This record gives sequence, structure tokens and C-alpha cells, in this order.
Amino acid sequence: MIAGIIGAAGYAGAELVRLLNGHKKVDALSLGSVSLEGGQIENVYPNFLGKISCPLVKPEEVVKASDVVFAALPHGVGEDFAKACLEKKVSFIDLSADFRFDEDEETFKAWYGKNYVHPELRQHSVYGLPELNREQIRTFSAAGPVIIGNPGCYPTGASLGMLPALTMGLASGETIIVDSASGITGGGREPQRSFHFPECSDSISPYKVGAHRHVPEISRNMQKMSAIFGSKAPRLIFTPHLAPLNRGILSTIYIPLKREWQAPSQSGLFAAARPPSKETEGKTNEVRELYAEYYKEEPFVRVLPQGVMASTGRVRQSNYCDISINMDQEGSTLIVITAIDNMVKGAAGQAVQNMNLIMGFDETEGLDAVPALF
Amino acid sequence: MIAGIIGAAGYAGAELVRLLNGHKKVDALSLGSVSLEGGQIENVYPNFLGKISCPLVKPEEVVKASDVVFAALPHGVGEDFAKACLEKKVSFIDLSADFRFDEDEETFKAWYGKNYVHPELRQHSVYGLPELNREQIRTFSAAGPVIIGNPGCYPTGASLGMLPALTMGLASGETIIVDSASGITGGGREPQRSFHFPECSDSISPYKVGAHRHVPEISRNMQKMSAIFGSKAPRLIFTPHLAPLNRGILSTIYIPLKREWQAPSQSGLFAAARPPSKETEGKTNEVRELYAEYYKEEPFVRVLPQGVMASTGRVRQSNYCDISINMDQEGSTLIVITAIDNMVKGAAGQAVQNMNLIMGFDETEGLDAVPALF
Amino acid sequence: MIAGIIGAAGYAGAELVRLLNGHKKVDALSLGSVSLEGGQIENVYPNFLGKISCPLVKPEEVVKASDVVFAALPHGVGEDFAKACLEKKVSFIDLSADFRFDEDEETFKAWYGKNYVHPELRQHSVYGLPELNREQIRTFSAAGPVIIGNPGCYPTGASLGMLPALTMGLASGETIIVDSASGITGGGREPQRSFHFPECSDSISPYKVGAHRHVPEISRNMQKMSAIFGSKAPRLIFTPHLAPLNRGILSTIYIPLKREWQAPSQSGLFAAARPPSKETEGKTNEVRELYAEYYKEEPFVRVLPQGVMASTGRVRQSNYCDISINMDQEGSTLIVITAIDNMVKGAAGQAVQNMNLIMGFDETEGLDAVPALF
Amino acid sequence: MIAGIIGAAGYAGAELVRLLNGHKKVDALSLGSVSLEGGQIENVYPNFLGKISCPLVKPEEVVKASDVVFAALPHGVGEDFAKACLEKKVSFIDLSADFRFDEDEETFKAWYGKNYVHPELRQHSVYGLPELNREQIRTFSAAGPVIIGNPGCYPTGASLGMLPALTMGLASGETIIVDSASGITGGGREPQRSFHFPECSDSISPYKVGAHRHVPEISRNMQKMSAIFGSKAPRLIFTPHLAPLNRGILSTIYIPLKREWQAPSQSGLFAAARPPSKETEGKTNEVRELYAEYYKEEPFVRVLPQGVMASTGRVRQSNYCDISINMDQEGSTLIVITAIDNMVKGAAGQAVQNMNLIMGFDETEGLDAVPALF
Repeated sequence: MIAGIIGAAGYAGAELVRLLNGHKKVDALSLGSVSLEGGQIENVYPNFLGKISCPLVKPEEVVKASDVVFAALPHGVGEDFAKACLEKKVSFIDLSADFRFDEDEETFKAWYGKNYVHPELRQHSVYGLPELNREQIRTFSAAGPVIIGNPGCYPTGASLGMLPALTMGLASGETIIVDSASGITGGGREPQRSFHFPECSDSISPYKVGAHRHVPEISRNMQKMSAIFGSKAPRLIFTPHLAPLNRGILSTIYIPLKREWQAPSQSGLFAAARPPSKETEGKTNEVRELYAEYYKEEPFVRVLPQGVMASTGRVRQSNYCDISINMDQEGSTLIVITAIDNMVKGAAGQAVQNMNLIMGFDETEGLDAVPALF
Repeated sequence: MIAGIIGAAGYAGAELVRLLNGHKKVDALSLGSVSLEGGQIENVYPNFLGKISCPLVKPEEVVKASDVVFAALPHGVGEDFAKACLEKKVSFIDLSADFRFDEDEETFKAWYGKNYVHPELRQHSVYGLPELNREQIRTFSAAGPVIIGNPGCYPTGASLGMLPALTMGLASGETIIVDSASGITGGGREPQRSFHFPECSDSISPYKVGAHRHVPEISRNMQKMSAIFGSKAPRLIFTPHLAPLNRGILSTIYIPLKREWQAPSQSGLFAAARPPSKETEGKTNEVRELYAEYYKEEPFVRVLPQGVMASTGRVRQSNYCDISINMDQEGSTLIVITAIDNMVKGAAGQAVQNMNLIMGFDETEGLDAVPALF
Repeated sequence: MIAGIIGAAGYAGAELVRLLNGHKKVDALSLGSVSLEGGQIENVYPNFLGKISCPLVKPEEVVKASDVVFAALPHGVGEDFAKACLEKKVSFIDLSADFRFDEDEETFKAWYGKNYVHPELRQHSVYGLPELNREQIRTFSAAGPVIIGNPGCYPTGASLGMLPALTMGLASGETIIVDSASGITGGGREPQRSFHFPECSDSISPYKVGAHRHVPEISRNMQKMSAIFGSKAPRLIFTPHLAPLNRGILSTIYIPLKREWQAPSQSGLFAAARPPSKETEGKTNEVRELYAEYYKEEPFVRVLPQGVMASTGRVRQSNYCDISINMDQEGSTLIVITAIDNMVKGAAGQAVQNMNLIMGFDETEGLDAVPALF
Repeated sequence: MIAGIIGAAGYAGAELVRLLNGHKKVDALSLGSVSLEGGQIENVYPNFLGKISCPLVKPEEVVKASDVVFAALPHGVGEDFAKACLEKKVSFIDLSADFRFDEDEETFKAWYGKNYVHPELRQHSVYGLPELNREQIRTFSAAGPVIIGNPGCYPTGASLGMLPALTMGLASGETIIVDSASGITGGGREPQRSFHFPECSDSISPYKVGAHRHVPEISRNMQKMSAIFGSKAPRLIFTPHLAPLNRGILSTIYIPLKREWQAPSQSGLFAAARPPSKETEGKTNEVRELYAEYYKEEPFVRVLPQGVMASTGRVRQSNYCDISINMDQEGSTLIVITAIDNMVKGAAGQAVQNMNLIMGFDETEGLDAVPALF
């Protein structure tokens, strides 16, 4: 099988190259780049020298040559390729936001400032967060080639942290806050002042507070998850930060609990002024077990045992989403921490996972790396 | 005047040495260290060679020699020195938690696991967050030598972010969440696995979720601030993270607003799914102006103009607390970002500011460094 | 086959665990740790959770259980295990310096301050730098179980940079200078002040100048390499530096060239004051081609094309040694840059390569990772 | 006095702003920027908010307004401003390479590819490395306004490391190797791929090997220094590296010693295979004392005591050049390590030092910062 990648010279594209190179079902790659057409991927990324050698061709040629096509392009420029793929009966896995909102063009337009180019393609597209909608992805792809709207990096970590709480009705329905920090590969390969070493190293800062384009995607996922339990979705507040790391997204997710999931209140004491009680610890363990049970069959989610905290350093280079379960000192709000590698589970790895699903391969094929130790 | 520092060889102590060395009213230093007694500070920190040369003596000798004494010691071991200072009619500025809880020994004991050694000393102690209680500090010290409970690093950044909102009654009273990230100097000078370079570099992780000892200190400050407006304090949830920086604490503070401070709701639209409206931006600007007005006389608080985001890199090596004002996309929750240098405004700088206050010096003396550019 | 690792909880040991876990010929691991006996490797390194689960047992049990034994121990404490392995007819791959000096106990003692425990074991030991003495390793192991003295991290990068120049007689015989910088994993897992994040981040510094224990090992390799050409070994000067990276060693190696390999001198011009001439560039290309030809069959050495500079970031997580070939502006000294991942080619990866050699496996088995992109 | 800075918005310019802001003789600043004309420096660097507020005007206006002018411009574009300053009887301190080569236009052209614009200006220019030619700077400036060719960053650290050895005749005359690593601020403020965080963090790499433009500057300084002793200059090999730090240059300088300065050879032993002897340590101490004696009156050079290694982290934010003295294991080559802050002693600080010299101020005015601890 030939796997094609349009936008192969960007960071997500190159990570796809690396992962697909180790995939047993992929016999060859066809790599496309508009800006570096005519070059070789191993000259753009000399890390690949001696292991991977592949010319960078026109995107159209990638479509022509491939049995499945990944696109790691800016938002709003890949729909023609998606269309061409479908016409050729080949599936298209899109890492941009173009196909993440299904038929809700209005929301897409409100945040991305563009209309859909070929709105009708959404009849063939499905959002690719397997832990949320694996069956839908399978059903869709059973019927023929599909378009996958591969999730955004922040929405992946945020949604996996909420999924059990929302689908099992633990959340009270009050606003959920997601406070995230991302490594700098999230900004892509093109140099910009914000990502210039002296500007971002040894410093941490939020950006696009209240205005990041991943708000509607997380929010929409919350609706889907809440609907499974049959409740209305909580409101979302999301704040992304830039931290001086290469890879990784850490999300700290505050989920107010329903009364029955809270620890009994420490009556007679000033509320916030006491350390967690045994009851709070007990409730935390209960929720942790629920999460562990929920995810027990998932190959890429690790609910960490008590005492182990999710950390981006522990999922580095892997497709894992690590989850640790905590509560505030009073036991009324669940604090879920998730850690992913933004370039793997947050982008290229999840795209490969989606390919495995729609092609009927083992879902972990090409994605079984043990997280790097440092 | 001779300034004494007990615990001078730790990170906060050494930063005090650096700051006091440039202080015009300080003629000489007397430096104490239990573990390194007999050594010289410039051998412990060769950065000081040629600029600062001072022996490390027994803490008792520091008390004897000094006109004001700073203590940068672990919690629970400095009370005897405080007592000795008061008896000698010399003020004592304590960077540990021992004097941060005034007469509330029960809270101290609940979180720190120790009783007060000399409870009666609290009659002479005052919490040293000048922006909150400058008048109280001045009044106390007008009457004679005092003990300053110098604030914790996280509580400084968190409290300054809430102060205008709580004292002016903007907050709805619902739970306030403080999500903070600290540089690694916060862990002190002693090597530990968590602060070993390969364990913490290129990674971000929370710690002590729901159980950090700064919870009761922030919470108590919230009570004081709310009382000024005449309302009950909101509950607090606080999550600290460790980020791969040397210095700095960034706090992202979520303050639900009273109805009248919220932007008008975007009726007819799915709540979280729309970017901030003009009304939200307008409300944000209103609150920013309020904050700017509130802090306009404060020498060490900068309310940043629209478009400039608080960042630890911009307060590096300075006593500033930078504040940027934001809202969620719906305009119902205020998102205040504060940045401080944890070693300066979060520890040694604030201690010097307190010394200036109680000694009647210009409050900015020794603290006028422009933040380093990188 | 069962592979045993004594000292599995240290950084090099854990990296061995990671690599051997992906090795097709290794059916199971037996992991030993003195200090953490009774624990589980996945609790020490939660990165492994869900992928690798293995108890930490007594070293003696590892020897008993295994078909090959790796030891990642401090110098001077592993000889008994080596002896036990040989008696059991099992090969022993030692990552300490104990077996790197063959029968030259005098040099070992001079630098490491210890005598050999079982000197006679050196009849069965061989130095494990495959690019230098692959045939010797094979011959030795053909005759029965062997002890491998796995090379030091710096000596690996330094020796591979000199190997073609010395064995082909390019070097003039004048002193060779090796100036290296290492990432901080090189200091091991135990916290120390030098490796405490605030002490080593954002800073670079040399250490043990003129006195590092890798001097005699590199020097001995230079003798072996020079002897192949039939010349006397040049003297060595070696300076290691500590740089704020997790992984990697970069070595800049200055090799004065024989007259015939130098570029023709720029007569009539002030010596150092002119940029490289065409002749210098031509000579550089000639030497690069020689190096490329020399290493063309080596699976783990990449001689980089003109214009690509060796960089630790490009060999991250891989067993590669990257080499770039340069000259000074006058064309009289060869400047070879080598980059390795100190934990892989500089330790665990090379140990696996040695296992592959002595067991008759494909030399690249378990070591075919594409270098990570970031 | 009004100090003007042309190119104030670049990194070196902004560092000048910061330093001159704290200079007692400077009453006001006039800041020029071509690309950001019309803006305010505190908007470009919000670190300055509340401390420094100054418009960015046309360079011509800076010349008009100022009593001394600094230029932090690219090479080859500042000569007209230098000329205008001289005509106006105002000194011009140039941080580019334009005035570093005195009347040797040929060398400048060979490396920078440009002719001098106004060659006659070199009658009024002097190279500004005070430790080498303080008297010349003073003599020149006594006669009227001058142009200072402020030294390059690498040449500053390299030259100060060689100065005592060359002027006192310790060096044998054989090739001197300078192996340096620089922080990333050295690349300036404009984003470039090499300085993009994910490309340069967690990695170290050399660049422009044998071809860096600082070769002729260091080489020329070596000639001047050797001439003082009356000997011919050694040849130079210089290799710069990029290390993941914000600030700092560390230089490791290999100076072969004359026979009489070497330690007695360890006869009867294999040369490189023995640790340093007592004699080597003794010789090292002798040279260290010579260096210390040589620099004892210099306000910005610290010859570190035995056991303290030069490190960029120890000169951070200061104008110091730290020097540590070492030898190879045989005692035949001096290994001098120098550390500077590339933005201070390597650029803006040295420029202020030069201003102090030519204006007759105390040489340390504005430059007395204690190095930051982290």
C-alpha cells in the first residue's frame, strides 16, 4: 500500500513520514509539498538520512499515486484534494480543521473566517477521535472511502479527560475549565517571533485567551459526550499556554461534580482551609477506578495509578494519552490531568490510528513505541 | 545599617544578599548559615566573586549583629530567632510560613503539621503583602519592631490577581480557580529527583493537586479581600505546576463575574461556540481600566495594556507583578493572568519591600531593576 | 532468549530495557537492582506503564535467569557477576570501565584508583567498539561466551571521528584535541547539585579539564587506530563540557593533517586572515569522500553531505553517529564533528549492537529507530 | 547628557537602552530605528513598561539630538552616521564590524564582501577592547571625538583568554585553537529557522566551521598581543557552536606552552595515559597566579580561584569576563576557559565601558550589576 502525505515538509507531515515509515502495511510513501517541491524529504530533515529517502512532488501527484492520503495543510486549502481522493475512491485523512465540524459550517465560519469549499463532502466525513466515535468511523468506512477530520491537538487531550465524566454523568453541568500548556512544535515549522528561542525559552505565557479556535471543537465534543448520557453540555472555558518544551500538551481540566460524586462536606470548618480528608481521597479513588474501567480496552489511554501524575515527559514520542485523577481539597470538583505528545496523539499518531481503523488494520500498528525516557 | 540574613546560602537567602547589596540604606550584611557556617557566601555562589564577600556565621551571631533580620529557613525552625530579635528590638522578616496565618494556629497546624512554638509572637506579626495591607504594616511598625510574615510565592501572584475584583465586588462569589506554573528555583537549592535536569526539562507536570500548602494562605487572603467589600469569600481551587524555567510564576485565575459585569449573553446562539463579541471585548476593557485605576499608585504592579499578555519572561529579575486582563469567549468569567519572578516579588524582593516599609525607607529602594530582556 | 540487566533502574539500564523490549530475539527480560530490589521497573519509570512490566530482583537472580547479561553498574563492582556469567557460559556486556582497558591494569588503576578484582577475566574480554574491532569481537565470541567492555560515551564519539584519519594515515602525528559537550543524562539518575535544573539550565561549562577518565580510553583507541596504519599515536587533549540538553554528545575534533592532505598555503597573504580558498574546500571534499567511503558499510555511521552539520538533535533516540567533515580556513587541520545520542550509541544502543554481534544476530536488530525529529 | 542609539530595537540596542537607563551620567536617551520608526521602545519590549518610555525616531534625528551615539546596525550601513557624528564633534560607538579592522580594508573586504564607504574615517577610529588598548582609546579620545570599533562577541572572550599568555610570552607560537559556544541571542532578534525553538532547543551544533567572520578579528588581536611581547602571532583555528541558552559565550582556548612553562614530562610512561601530576598542577597554579596578577586592576575580568570553573551562568547579566586556568594532563598546553555574557561584555556592556572611557567617566559606571544567580 502506498500512503500519501500532502504537506509532508511541515512538522506534522514529517512526523507522519516517520511513523508511516515504520508501519508494516505501508509499502511506500508519496510525499507532496508545494513550497519545497522538487526537493527530497531527507534534505529537509537530515534526521532521516540513511533511513528514509523520498522526493517531494506536487500534491496532485500524491493523490494520483496513493491508496490513502493524509493532508497536513493550513485550514481551508485542502478540500479540492479531499474531493479528488473521494472521486478516486481513496480515503482522505485531514489534519486541518476543515472537516472537524461536520455540517456545522456556521461554527466553522465564525471561528475560521471561511466558508466550506465543497460543503457536500461532509456527507462523507467523520470526526476522528476513536475513543469517542470508533464505531461511527468504522461504520462510515465500511461503506467506502471516507474523509477523516483528525482532531486538533488541544481538543484531543481535553476531550479524553472529560469523556468518562460526561458520558457517565459525573459532571454537575456547571462550566468546565480547561487550562492547557503546549510545547512549541505546536506552532509549526515556520519561524515566528513568538517561537524564536530567546523570546520563548525560560518563559511561560498564555495566548488567545478566550479566543482560541479549539474552543468550538472542544465544546462540540462536550455536546456529543453529554448527549450520550442524555444531558445538556456544560459551558467551556479554555486557556492555552506556551511552555518552553519541544513536544507535549498538558491539560488541567476542572469538572464540577454532581452532589452524589462529591466528598461529604467538612462541616463546621472553614471551607478551603483544610487539607483533603479521607473521604475526599476515597472519592478520588472511586472516580479513578471508574476512569480506569472506562478506558480499560483503549490501547492508547493510560489512567495512571494513585501517586503518579500525568506529565508530558512520560508520553514523549508515543501515542499515549496519560490521565491522572485528582480532586480539589474539598472533594467537589474533579481535576483531571491529561498529557499527550502533541505531534503524535495530538496530530500524526492519531491520524495513523484513524488510518488503521478505516483500513481495517490493527489499531496499534505503527504506533507501539514505548515513550522515550528523556 | 546592618541587615542580617539567616539561611543566606539557600536560593531565597542568596537572592536577598544580591538585592540588599545594592540597597542604599544597607551598610553591611551579616549572613548566617547552619550547614555552611565557617564558609564564605562568594564561595557558595561564585557569581558574587569580586562584588560581595561575606563570611557565613552562626544564626545567633546574625541576630546579635543586625539592625533588621531576614530569615529564609524551613517552616517551624525560626521562631526562636524571631523572639530573640523582638527582645533585642529588631524587626524580623520571615520568609517561611510560620507567621503567615496570624493567630490561626489551627489552620497552620492542619497544613504544616506543627504547633506554633511561641504563639504569643503573633501579637507582633503582620502579613506582608503591601498591596493588600500596607497601612496595617505601617501602623504595626510605627509602634516598634515587628515580625513580617512574608507571603508565599504562589499566594503573591494569586492574590494580586484577585485583589481588585474581590475588594470592588466584581466576583459573583462562585469558586475561583487558580492554575499556576512555577520555575524550578521554587524548589530550592537542594538537589531532588523532581528537579534533576533530565527529569524536569522538556516536560511540564502538576504536583500536589488539591493539597498544596499555599491553598490556605490564598484562601485566607481571599477572605480578607472579600471582607473589604463586605462579602463572603469564594471557595478556592488551586493547582500548581512545575515548568522548565529557572524563575517565574505564571497564574491563570478564573473569576466568575457578577451578572452586571458580564457581557450580554449571545442569545440565540449555542453558548460556547462563538468567538468573543464586541460586547465581551468592551467589558474586558472596562475591567482592565478598573484594574489599572486600582493599581495606579502601586510601584510594583503593572496592569498591561490590551494586546500585551503577562509572561514570566517579562518580569525576570524584577519585583514587578504583571497583570493582563481577559475574559472567556462569552464574557461571563474574568481570566486574570499574573506573572511574577518567584525569587523577587515572590520571595526576596517582597521581603526587601517590607523592610523598606517598616523602616520608613522609599518602598522601591533596592528594587528598581528593569526586568532583564532575556 | 532472556536478556538480563543488572543496574536496570539507572538511566543506562532503563534505556537498555526500552531497547531490548523492542528486540525480536529477546523473549523476556530479567532486571536487577540493588537499591530498588522488590520494586517494579514500570513504577520507577512510569513511561513504561502498559508496555513493560518487570520486577526488580537481586543481581544474582539475573545472572541465574539470563542467556546474556548486561551490567550498568558503577566502576569496580561488577566483576563478580562477570565471573559468574562466564562460569555459567553466558556472555557479559559491561557498561562500566572495568573491561575497557584489557590487560592494562596499570592505566585503569591510575585513573580509577582501583585494582582489577579478577585480572584473569581479561583473557575473555574484548573492547566493544564494533567500527574499530568488529572482527575481534566476532572471533572472540565464536570461541564461547565473552565479556564486552562497552565503550564510554565520549570515547565513542571521539574515536569514530578519528578512525578513518588515523587508520588511513591522514594525521600528521601532532596533538589531537577533542572538545566535547554532553547532555545531562550523562551524569546519571542520582540528583546532584551540578545537575540540579537551576544550576545547569541556561548555562554551559567545562568540567574535569585535563583530568577526565575518558582520556586514557580515547588515548588507547588512538594507539590502536594509529597502529593499523603503522604509526605512533598522536597525543590527546580532551575537554568535556556540560550543556543544557537531555541527550547527546557533540565532539569537535581537531586533527592536524599531513602536508600532503593540506590545502596549498595561501602564500603572500597574512595567514589566518583569509576565508577558506577553493583549494581548502576541495581538500575538505576529498577527505569527506574518504570518510564516506570508509564508513559506507557501517550501519550506524552517517558521514553527512557537504552543507549538513552534525548536531545532537539529529541523532536523538537513535544509534547513529553523525559525522561532518570540515577544515580550518587555511586547510591544514581537519575539523571533524561527531554527534551521538549518549544514551544510545554512547551506552545502551552500542551494548545491544555488541549483543547482536556476539550472538550472531543482525547487527541492527532492535536499533533501527529513525532519529526523533524533536 | 543625551545618549543616542541607532538600531535601538534590536537585541544589542535594547540591551544598551537597559544599561544606559541606569547610567548616572546619562540624562536622556534618543532612540532610532528604521523599521520601527514611529513606535515606542516599551511596546517593542514590554519588559520596559513603567520604567523606560521612549519614541523610536529616524536615525538622523538621533545624530542630531545626541552627545554620544551608539550604533547597533548590520555591517556596512552605519558609516554615514559615523561621519555625521564626527562632523558634529560627537563620538560614535559602533557595534558592527565596520571599524574593527582599522585601515586594513583588504581583510574587511575579504570576509565581509564590502569596501569601506568612507575609508578616511579610520584615522579617527580605534578598536575598543579596553583590556588590550585602554591607553590608545584614551589618547585618541583626548584629542576629540572618536569612533570606537566595539569588539565582536567571540573576539572579546577569546582575546581576553589569550592576552596574558601572548603579551607575556607563555605561548610556544604553535596554532591556538578557540572552541566556543554561544547562546541564541547572538543571532539577533529576527526569527530564523536556526533559532526557531524546536530546531535549536535540546541540541548543540557547530556552524561556519573555519569560516566565521570573527576569525580575522581574533587573529588580528593575536598579532597585536604577540607584538607586545615581540613575537610572531600564532595561527588561529576558531569553531563557534550554537548552544540552547539565551545568553553567554563560553570559550575553551588551547594555547601550546613554551618548553619552560610546561610541566616536566612524565618520562617512562605512555604520554596521554596518566592523570595530571603534581608538577602539572603546580605549573597550572603558577600560570593562574600570573593571570590573576596581570588582570588584578581590571574591573571586569575575574581570574577564578582553583576549583572554580568558568561558566556562562555565573556572568549572566553582568559585564564580567570570567577566566579559569587549566592544563592538559601532561602539562604542555594551557587550557583557558572564558565566560562572558554575549549581550553585555560581548556587546552592549563593553560599548558602555568604551563610552565611559572616552567621556572620562568612571569606567564601571552603569556596569556594576552583580551577576544574576539564575
